[in-house]
Order: sequence, then structure tokens, then C-alpha cells
Amino acid sequence: MTTTKVSSELLNLIRRNSSFLIVGHINPEADSLGSSLALALGLRKMGKRDICVLSRDPVPENLRFLPSSKKVKLKPPRREFDVLFIVDCNDPERTGFKGLRAAKTAVIDHHVLPAGAGKSGFYRSLSASLIDPDAAATGVLVYKVLTALGIPIDKNMAENLYAAILVDTGGFRYSNSSPESLKIASSLVEAGAKPWDITKDVYESIPFRSMKLLGLSLSTLEKKDGVAWITTTRAMFRKAGATAEDSEDFVDYPRKVKGIDVAVFFRQDGMKSFKISLRSKGRVNVQKIAKRFNGGGHVAAAGCTVNGTLKEVQEKVLKAVRAALKGS
Amino acid sequence: MTTTKVSSELLNLIRRNSSFLIVGHINPEADSLGSSLALALGLRKMGKRDICVLSRDPVPENLRFLPSSKKVKLKPPRREFDVLFIVDCNDPERTGFKGLRAAKTAVIDHHVLPAGAGKSGFYRSLSASLIDPDAAATGVLVYKVLTALGIPIDKNMAENLYAAILVDTGGFRYSNSSPESLKIASSLVEAGAKPWDITKDVYESIPFRSMKLLGLSLSTLEKKDGVAWITTTRAMFRKAGATAEDSEDFVDYPRKVKGIDVAVFFRQDGMKSFKISLRSKGRVNVQKIAKRFNGGGHVAAAGCTVNGTLKEVQEKVLKAVRAALKGS
Repeated sequence: MTTTKVSSELLNLIRRNSSFLIVGHINPEADSLGSSLALALGLRKMGKRDICVLSRDPVPENLRFLPSSKKVKLKPPRREFDVLFIVDCNDPERTGFKGLRAAKTAVIDHHVLPAGAGKSGFYRSLSASLIDPDAAATGVLVYKVLTALGIPIDKNMAENLYAAILVDTGGFRYSNSSPESLKIASSLVEAGAKPWDITKDVYESIPFRSMKLLGLSLSTLEKKDGVAWITTTRAMFRKAGATAEDSEDFVDYPRKVKGIDVAVFFRQDGMKSFKISLRSKGRVNVQKIAKRFNGGGHVAAAGCTVNGTLKEVQEKVLKAVRAALKGS
Repeated sequence: MTTTKVSSELLNLIRRNSSFLIVGHINPEADSLGSSLALALGLRKMGKRDICVLSRDPVPENLRFLPSSKKVKLKPPRREFDVLFIVDCNDPERTGFKGLRAAKTAVIDHHVLPAGAGKSGFYRSLSASLIDPDAAATGVLVYKVLTALGIPIDKNMAENLYAAILVDTGGFRYSNSSPESLKIASSLVEAGAKPWDITKDVYESIPFRSMKLLGLSLSTLEKKDGVAWITTTRAMFRKAGATAEDSEDFVDYPRKVKGIDVAVFFRQDGMKSFKISLRSKGRVNVQKIAKRFNGGGHVAAAGCTVNGTLKEVQEKVLKAVRAALKGS
């Protein structure tokens, strides 16, 4: 059963059981880890002794400051737990583990359920859940669960939840920065979360190689007909000693250019192969553009891979973007 | 008289008068303008008809979205007003106007008063004030004044106040992002402020020339012994078609490099003249370093001008930074 409110089923599931396995999604970010860890800390505060936070992938370097993150396990313990909590995703496959089992299963998540999911075997088997796509972050939902249980939020829980909400709202910048998320953030700072310390770890700890690569890439910035684009070549990766991972949010820079509608990032992966990231500021649906090159994504953020020389690839992609802008 | 709480003197000063001149500081940013405009909108909502918002410098391009900002006057009207409000500064000189006069004067500000200021003639002459250095922004204080007056915050006031608080807390990142500022932000979003729209205008409208210049400058990034630095040369300004104004926050980029203690930005102003910006992540007081070169600033942010070739200037400044780091 799924609900968008903290249900008595969910609260009783926690109150009446004693061992809990908590798992987020693969490639975990602050919302997945922060929500899992805050839930674990809350359950411990209630006196539960057997709690395991599990993640298929290790805690990323910039999130190792999250309190208790050292206790995250990468392999499921052999013993069986009373309750399995699936957090910040609503599909067991997204956890990256096969056959995780417990006597009872519950989901806490803010992602939209796939169409018809409510009727599937997995959702019908849930003992309880809290699935609310209107919540800014899963951290908001875990905060609600903990306060509904009457658990006082301590500094460690607050830091985990603050990081979760901070990252999923883009630092309280995206349109999901709701009154509720800001109000909860206020309570979390009151409970001891330090915005600047968390910001420093999350946003101000960029590896030197990544910043160097950004400079080289941003030097290629061009703009024409409402489109701004940058390129990262293999030579630049070599010069900066960097890898693809270091260029993760580079498309945000052309996106910030004033007066443009679409931003494009060309990343050279092979001699004649480019990974393309597309961002729209609202006028066009970049998912449609990416689809033309067998890619995918959302209305405002999409991607694809295109083969050819840089010149060929840029011509093809920019032509498609301009056509989309003309048609809009 | 100065107080850190909304006093009955301040409320009565507003209630009992009918014409108001509101002025912020020179080079106004979102807190100065947003606070002034929100106060003006609130007074108008109370039925006051004669209100003028004054600024020595024009509204910067990226703040023209602030509701009512078109009504900002750059020259003081000739008529006399009942009340002069000095906002987001507490020294009449900071307004950039000489001899502004009204029957009564009041200050609303969150900057620290100069030592002994309370006893000066200006402060003794104030009819009322609200000066609270613990407030994250002057916008917080204007919000308190408006709510104490029982004025319902509408969308236009909310957008002005949200922008004010957003910018002065560095997007809710700095350590002044207090529970109070986040709670007020929550109410402002509830009242109609749109975080993403305001963010787009404030943080995502960077001129192309400025972004291009950032790329060229960031390509020069170097790091050694806990110091990261970048340089912008006159050739880069020419290549990007940019001016010094376009490089305003460039020092933030070396500051974001992981594991460094001090960030330095070298900006070539003349053939043999460099403007230096220094930022500390906490270990050293960069004001002391800047002072050695006849500059000034704060513990964490300081600047100075040094003459010589780029090589000479970099050697001198980096040597001083390294010495400070060794001594810390």
C-alpha cells in the first residue's frame, strides 16, 4: 500500500519491529544517503539496535562528511531483518541489489511512480510506504516520519537531512524549493546543521583537475541563435589529468549565459564519439532533440551519443537544436 | 535612538506620517534595492500615497526584474518628506547623497555600527531605527516591520524580500543562513516568490563575455602549498570583449578548489599594475596579507594593488601568502 501521508501503518511498522535494513539507490547522492542515514540515526535513538544502511556504490568523496556515513555497508548482511526500507527510489532494481529480503518491506520516496505501478505485485506486497512526488526531497519525508514518531532531531540527523534537501533543491534554487522544504531547513539549522560547513563540503570541494578542465572547456564557449555550447576534448582531459566524472556539471556553465534558450556540452569520449548534454531554459523540449540521436532524458535536461568528428557532430546537433528553436 | 527590535517608535513613525523618502546605499545590490522596494510597496498598501525610492546608482541589469524597480529615482525630489528611511546602511554618506533631509529620519539595517556611533549626532537625531547585525539581511528586518504593521505580504513584496535574503546569505549557503532567515524565506515562497525565477535572474544571467573571460582566466589555474590562483590579463579582456566588472566573482573559483587554504585572483589593470583579490577558507587572515601591500578588507576576503610584471607580482604575493600559511 502506498500513501502520501505518514500513515499509522508506517509508524507502527517502525514501532513494532526491531531490526531494519535501509537501502537507497545506485550512484547515491546526498538525498539517498542523507535520508537513509538520518532514518537509521532516528531508529537508533528510539532504542532499535540492529540497523544496517546499505548502498551498492560507495559513499562519494564529497559526501563522506555525512554523519555516520562510515557505517554504510556495501554488501547485504547474511541475516534476515524484520523490515527492509527502500529509500529515495521506488523500484527494487534501482537499489542495485537482487533478492534483498525482509519479513516486511516499506518505501519512502519522492519520485513519481511508474504508470500502473500501484497495482503491481511489488507495491501490493508493501507493508507500508510514504511516496510523495510533491516533496522536494526524500529528506523532507524522513523528517516527517521522525517527527511523527516524536524523535527529537539531533545535530547528526539534521546534517544528513539538510544535505539531502539542499542538493535536491539545487541549493534552494529549483522550483521545488517549497515553503515546506525551507521551513524544514530552518528547523534543521535550529537543530544544529551548519549551512556553510555543508555547502563547503557539497559545493566547494572541487578537485583541482576538475576546475582546470572547466577552464580549458569554458575557453571554447560559443553562442549563436539562442544556443551556447562548450566542448571538452580528449586532449583537455589529458592536459588536466581528469576523467569524464570530472566534467559532470559542465553543461550548467553555458546554461548560465544570459539570453540563451538551450545549452549544449560536447564531451569527447572516443576519437570519433561524443557524449552530448542538452539543457533547456524553457522554450524547447530537449528530450525530443536527444531522441533524434537515440538519446533520452527530460524536457529540460537530456543527452545522447553522436559519432563523427567534432565538426560533424557539432554541425548535426546544433542544426537540430536550431530547428527545434525555430519550430517552438 | 537605535534598537534591534521593531519598536513602537518605528511603527508609530510609519503609522502617523504620510510621505516617505527611502534610500539605500551606492552600488546597490539585491538587499539594498529589494528591502527599499518592499518597504515602499508595504507603505503603499497601508494607503500612503507619497513614497519615493531613491538610489545614487541605477538598478543593475540583473536586478531589473525586482517588482517596482522601474520606479526607483536617481535624483532626490525637491519637495520635503515627512520621513527619510536609510536602508541597508547606517551612515548617511553611504547613500551617496549629500544633505538629504526630511522632518524625521530612521535607519533599517543589519550592518555593524561603527564603534561609538550610538553617541554621534546622527544617531541621536534619529526618530527611530531597527539596526540588528544578527539579521541575515536587511530584507529580514523589513519583513519584520511589515508583519508588525499587520501588512499582508503580497507577491511583489515577497519577490523583493526573497531576492534580498537570497543574495545576502549567498543563496542560503553562508553561515548567516539562520533558522529565522530560512523560515522567512519559506513564508515568502508561500506568499508567491518563485525561487527558480529569482535564481535565474540573479545567478543564471551571466553575460557571454563574462563567461568567456572566466574560461580564459580559469585555464591559468595553478595550485601549490595550499594556495590556488588564477590570472586575468589585458589580452584576455580584449579577447572576450570584457571589462573589470565582468570578472567580479572570479576569485570564488580557485576558492572552490578542494584542499586549499587561500585563493588568489590576479587581475591586470595596467601594463604593470595588478589588482589582487585574496580569500581565506579559515586558516589565515588575508586582511593582514593585503595590508602588507597597502590594501585592506576582512579576515576571509581582502584585496590590494601591486605594481610590477605579472611574474614579479605573483612571486611577491604568493611568497607573502605562503609565509602567512607557515606562520598559522
